[in-house]
Amino acid sequence: MAEAKSGGLAGVVAGQTKIATVGKEGVGLSYRGYTIEDLSSKASFEETAYLLIYGELPTAQQLAQYQQKLIHLRSLPKTLQTILELIPVNANPMDVLRTACSVLGILEPESSQRSAQQIADRLLAVFPAVLLYWYHFQNSRQSINVELTTPGVAAYFLELLHGDKPEPIYVDALNVSLVLYAEHEFNASTFAARVTTATLSDVYSAMGSAIGTLRGPLHGGANEEALKLIERFDSPQQAEVGVKQMLANKELIMGFGHRVYKISDPRSDIIKSWAKKLAEHNHDQTLFAIAETIENVMWAEKKLFPNLDFYSALVYYFAGIPREFFTPLFVFSRTSGWAAHILEQRENNKIIRPIADYIGPPVRKFIELNKR
Amino acid sequence: MAEAKSGGLAGVVAGQTKIATVGKEGVGLSYRGYTIEDLSSKASFEETAYLLIYGELPTAQQLAQYQQKLIHLRSLPKTLQTILELIPVNANPMDVLRTACSVLGILEPESSQRSAQQIADRLLAVFPAVLLYWYHFQNSRQSINVELTTPGVAAYFLELLHGDKPEPIYVDALNVSLVLYAEHEFNASTFAARVTTATLSDVYSAMGSAIGTLRGPLHGGANEEALKLIERFDSPQQAEVGVKQMLANKELIMGFGHRVYKISDPRSDIIKSWAKKLAEHNHDQTLFAIAETIENVMWAEKKLFPNLDFYSALVYYFAGIPREFFTPLFVFSRTSGWAAHILEQRENNKIIRPIADYIGPPVRKFIELNKR
Repeated sequence: MAEAKSGGLAGVVAGQTKIATVGKEGVGLSYRGYTIEDLSSKASFEETAYLLIYGELPTAQQLAQYQQKLIHLRSLPKTLQTILELIPVNANPMDVLRTACSVLGILEPESSQRSAQQIADRLLAVFPAVLLYWYHFQNSRQSINVELTTPGVAAYFLELLHGDKPEPIYVDALNVSLVLYAEHEFNASTFAARVTTATLSDVYSAMGSAIGTLRGPLHGGANEEALKLIERFDSPQQAEVGVKQMLANKELIMGFGHRVYKISDPRSDIIKSWAKKLAEHNHDQTLFAIAETIENVMWAEKKLFPNLDFYSALVYYFAGIPREFFTPLFVFSRTSGWAAHILEQRENNKIIRPIADYIGPPVRKFIELNKR
Repeated sequence: MAEAKSGGLAGVVAGQTKIATVGKEGVGLSYRGYTIEDLSSKASFEETAYLLIYGELPTAQQLAQYQQKLIHLRSLPKTLQTILELIPVNANPMDVLRTACSVLGILEPESSQRSAQQIADRLLAVFPAVLLYWYHFQNSRQSINVELTTPGVAAYFLELLHGDKPEPIYVDALNVSLVLYAEHEFNASTFAARVTTATLSDVYSAMGSAIGTLRGPLHGGANEEALKLIERFDSPQQAEVGVKQMLANKELIMGFGHRVYKISDPRSDIIKSWAKKLAEHNHDQTLFAIAETIENVMWAEKKLFPNLDFYSALVYYFAGIPREFFTPLFVFSRTSGWAAHILEQRENNKIIRPIADYIGPPVRKFIELNKR
């Protein structure tokens, strides 16, 4: 079978979806029929999350109510707060989110009174609070107030991180990034969430599978690796020589190419334009030029295009976000897409259980322990 | 494509494995070439876990060392102990294990000094301690000593649970059950672990995905549902009428049939013989008879055979194990199989990322918020 030969279920249809198109000819990326070009230029992240979780774009009133709802869902239960205070400062922030998700599954379990959609909204609202409560507590022993009334994940996150109101240009850039990261069909983390959901497990288990899967450098971890790459070089000239050398050494270069997109990632041009804006705003003379040089070398040498992760890394860097929070930001956004897929999987559920091609030893005779 | 029509990747080859055969014609179930009939009658669970994780059966000396190693890996870090003390008594025990696994990923992270195999051994050794420390603390405010030197998961678990040395017949029965539950190819939880592993995430994330996936009633939760079913009836006569009525009502009956096995589950006869032994030992006059009646009705009416979960439920019941620990026992065992698959996935890794058949709305015009 084709799937066994190529591996990784590449090109294998694992189910149906109404949520997103990825790389379909002439369509690019759309969420429930709306293109990412429209959504990223005209909609807030919360509007996009509502579209994904509730199926249609909200009216102005619905959106205002939804923003208020998310603001009210930011508080941390005392037990979770205590647990965050016990998690050491050197923990991987993705492990902090994975743990908090699991703990919330205990403290606020799914039930007939607490639906999957309510839990999705809760996690969307509380994940930034979880991360930054832990971060500030462990770094400066401050129990910060996470119950700010600033609307929107982008502004809320930046305000919690830096302790003051962010400049609008950073909020806008982060908002675009959150819209672009929100949903991407059967990517590995979403597929993991669907595999978990398909045994009729709870939303928190599915979200936990997704976070743990996103954590890997071949998936969400790629944006952190992209910044490490850009920061290795002091000038575009050095980057050109260095990347060619890395390619000659067959080193893995993160932030380029994609399993499904073959010609370009439609999200990259959008986020690149924001990286450029922030570079100008920050009077950056080198990092953006280095990134563009890497992009040109990768295309000239390997015909590989940047994916969303590459220029997102620069946007986050210019917004003053520590590198280890890049993948958590991906979580804050993709929680909306994961939720949409968990709900969709439940609508027409069947356990996801493929088979394997056995290439191990034939049946062999058991030798008793004392004769081995 | 066939897989899109049938759904759930049924019959789709998702990769190669050297670990187990499931339902291959004339072979039944084998772990690395050894049949489950041999393993369950001649090997301990630890011998089986060693086979799965390290690839070959241990010598007598290797097994003795391995048993000692597992005994030394039972201690709970202070931070984890404190967190377990914070988890409420009404928590789902699977959520406790999922959370503890996530916390251990922070306290004892994977690194070049701590390999995947070491982590697998640690989790095999510590999961019973996690569960029963939490259980006794929350139910009777006792901080039990989990560092017993009793060899073997089966005896250790029963001793921690009941507070005294278990009768050998229960240890033997539980040991057989652990051997039978240890590994089952690309079942849903193992497949989830492989999806997580394939992004190059860490062992704890993969194990967490597996636990969260096993938690669902269509997978690990089935053994708890099986006991609920058996306990609904007071006599075989009542069971016969009742199950027929449930079938007429199209109620889902857990513990029967299997995605891959079509004629019978080779594990069921083995565990049934142990359920029978324990029934006799416990002077049970009804439960075993009720279970057999249910088995007969399911076969006569639906040509469905019991799977491993059905009679395992009775074995656990007769051994005095609370029903909510049945799925955690599955975790204690399957951790060995998950570990084998995590290691195998890494050997020849490719990200697991299928595609979806898009059936959502075509591209639609974005309407500005104020015009909706």
